[in-house]
Amino acid sequence: MTQSKANSLGVVEPRRYQHNSEFWLQNGEQLHEYELVFETYGTLNADKSNAILICHALSGHHHAAGFHALDDAKPGWWDACIGPGKCIDTDQFFVLSLNNLGGCHGSTGPNSIDPNTGEIFGPSFPNVVVKDWVASQAHLADHLGIKKFVAVVGGSLGGMQAMQWSIDFPERVYAAVLIASAAKLSAQNIAFNEIARQAITTDEDYCSGNYQQFDKNPEKGLMLARMVGHVTYLSEDGMKTKFGRDVKSGNFAQGADVEFQVESYLHYQGRAFTQYFDANTYLLMTRALDYFDPAREFDGDLTRALEQTTTKFLVLSFSTDWRFSPERSQEIVDALIRARKNVASAIIESEHGHDSFLLPINRYTKILSAFLQRSYAELEDISRSSQTTQGDLS
Amino acid sequence: MTQSKANSLGVVEPRRYQHNSEFWLQNGEQLHEYELVFETYGTLNADKSNAILICHALSGHHHAAGFHALDDAKPGWWDACIGPGKCIDTDQFFVLSLNNLGGCHGSTGPNSIDPNTGEIFGPSFPNVVVKDWVASQAHLADHLGIKKFVAVVGGSLGGMQAMQWSIDFPERVYAAVLIASAAKLSAQNIAFNEIARQAITTDEDYCSGNYQQFDKNPEKGLMLARMVGHVTYLSEDGMKTKFGRDVKSGNFAQGADVEFQVESYLHYQGRAFTQYFDANTYLLMTRALDYFDPAREFDGDLTRALEQTTTKFLVLSFSTDWRFSPERSQEIVDALIRARKNVASAIIESEHGHDSFLLPINRYTKILSAFLQRSYAELEDISRSSQTTQGDLS
Repeated sequence: MTQSKANSLGVVEPRRYQHNSEFWLQNGEQLHEYELVFETYGTLNADKSNAILICHALSGHHHAAGFHALDDAKPGWWDACIGPGKCIDTDQFFVLSLNNLGGCHGSTGPNSIDPNTGEIFGPSFPNVVVKDWVASQAHLADHLGIKKFVAVVGGSLGGMQAMQWSIDFPERVYAAVLIASAAKLSAQNIAFNEIARQAITTDEDYCSGNYQQFDKNPEKGLMLARMVGHVTYLSEDGMKTKFGRDVKSGNFAQGADVEFQVESYLHYQGRAFTQYFDANTYLLMTRALDYFDPAREFDGDLTRALEQTTTKFLVLSFSTDWRFSPERSQEIVDALIRARKNVASAIIESEHGHDSFLLPINRYTKILSAFLQRSYAELEDISRSSQTTQGDLS
Repeated sequence: MTQSKANSLGVVEPRRYQHNSEFWLQNGEQLHEYELVFETYGTLNADKSNAILICHALSGHHHAAGFHALDDAKPGWWDACIGPGKCIDTDQFFVLSLNNLGGCHGSTGPNSIDPNTGEIFGPSFPNVVVKDWVASQAHLADHLGIKKFVAVVGGSLGGMQAMQWSIDFPERVYAAVLIASAAKLSAQNIAFNEIARQAITTDEDYCSGNYQQFDKNPEKGLMLARMVGHVTYLSEDGMKTKFGRDVKSGNFAQGADVEFQVESYLHYQGRAFTQYFDANTYLLMTRALDYFDPAREFDGDLTRALEQTTTKFLVLSFSTDWRFSPERSQEIVDALIRARKNVASAIIESEHGHDSFLLPINRYTKILSAFLQRSYAELEDISRSSQTTQGDLS
């Protein structure tokens, strides 16, 4: 193992869950069946009480930790936080991570075959919303025999799933960890998502979403979408530290067209993204982000939306995150307090903007680790005392 | 006159300045000649000492105030601040506003005929930088017989021109007003500009910049560029107040694709922009923004760059402007103080982000008006006392 693979889970293998019955979506449509690709890290204990579910963000997937092959250049997207001895400690927890429905990394989505037509779904893949993801994740948990998670954990769009779990299945989630998330997107966030969608759908290679049929890929649009994401997920100070105004090529004095380092970086990242992410999935994921608003059914009152939950919460945000700012997290905390729920929260100092949630920042990982440990201990206590009580009664 | 035309200059007429000799640009290229379209408001006094120059921003032009026809729906872009009795008071001042070189509203630019080829310049129009604009504006001032401006005033990219005037022609600018500007763009700002450029240049209708030859216009790219601009020129709170998460069409409950108000607004604004702005000019203007950095020639030391100026300064910024934040203005103020220059500054409370500089916000217009009045009075005093002194000596 190379240096970077120390403290890692080593090689992990994706698995598949096949849901063989109809699945009704929130928009009234149904999938005859669906498949989810997932990975697990650590060992599920005998009473299946040590499971943690990781929910991914906009461009995420099931491969959260470890490597798919020993010569992989990079580990899973949250390897900094998931592994033996890490803050989501696989020596103690059984960690489940999946690719969401509608994704493009192996789960049923726009690139899957529509059994009704024998062709790939493409743009006709139904709109899915956060509530659909949570329902499909619950089926996966059933399949694995997990009745209750110690915690459902997610950053950004992943945090929205954790919140929805606490509303839809409070009895199945002891704790929800909402990181750099929001109870609903702001107009500004919707606007940035719309720019990304517009970039994709106006690319002539998008072909109304049927690009595969024409052996095309709206790479220019996807690249732009990713560039917008990158700029807005970083903080201004973080970009300054990383790039400043350094020049990559060209020369001011000679009057040549200058390319700044930050431009070169964005081009590189944007181009790379087009090789591993699907345009229809990007549209679907951003729509799910925009739609999310659990308070909508309660006349916009988030407190009422959270009134029935029995889950406890940890709400974390980052000082320089301007797309999912500490104020958005504070709205969630305020609603939970008004609803008299058990909530802990912290704003973590970091110059890395929204991307901070992926990084092993010391205070962040300590808080997360302690919260998960304590939640697990509490859950075990409750379980023991309930067994004792049941024993007394029998 | 309709209600909106009260306190307005009424109908104004653009004029043209023809520069009939060679004009060398900073990048070493030359224009054999150039033309600038401009407007003036108010009356130039006998000793031509009451002139104020307005420099426009990225998407601006010469038509800053008044109407081109009585049935125009909208006045010039800064009509809120320029006119009889307004903060740039045309009862007192002679106000000059022009379309910059490289623009697309009548001045020599990418859409002009290249005398070398007889074809339009298109993408071969040379790169111009802020210093070139200032030099060409100085020729226009010569033409009008204006030796010294009471003030050069500009917002955003316009503020950069005002700063450059104070460095290149300190003896010709009594005061410089830098509004919502910066001494150089941040990496984040360059990144947003690069996204806009990328959107334009990857539009298949861009045709490597020769779109007119093919009777095309990269409308999709320009629309995206404008959308990015709009989102980043507004503040998050301003967008929230203006749009919230209001739905324009579609219905959540019925699972239909929902369009939010903010999306509809951005589409409308973006589409409209493609009808009156030229893509090559947009690229040129954003490049000029990115390049601007008068400290570059002084090892990055802005204080040294400003050491020789004799101009006095007013530096204004807006609390919610995150593209040209109060911190960027503060950098300018700090450098001016270190260089022992005469500088006043204020941060104006406003929820309208970068766009605030266009609006007649009470504290803003009061400060601006008072500063211009005082500058004019000081300049007249100096002029009088210098005449007296000369009289005594003769």
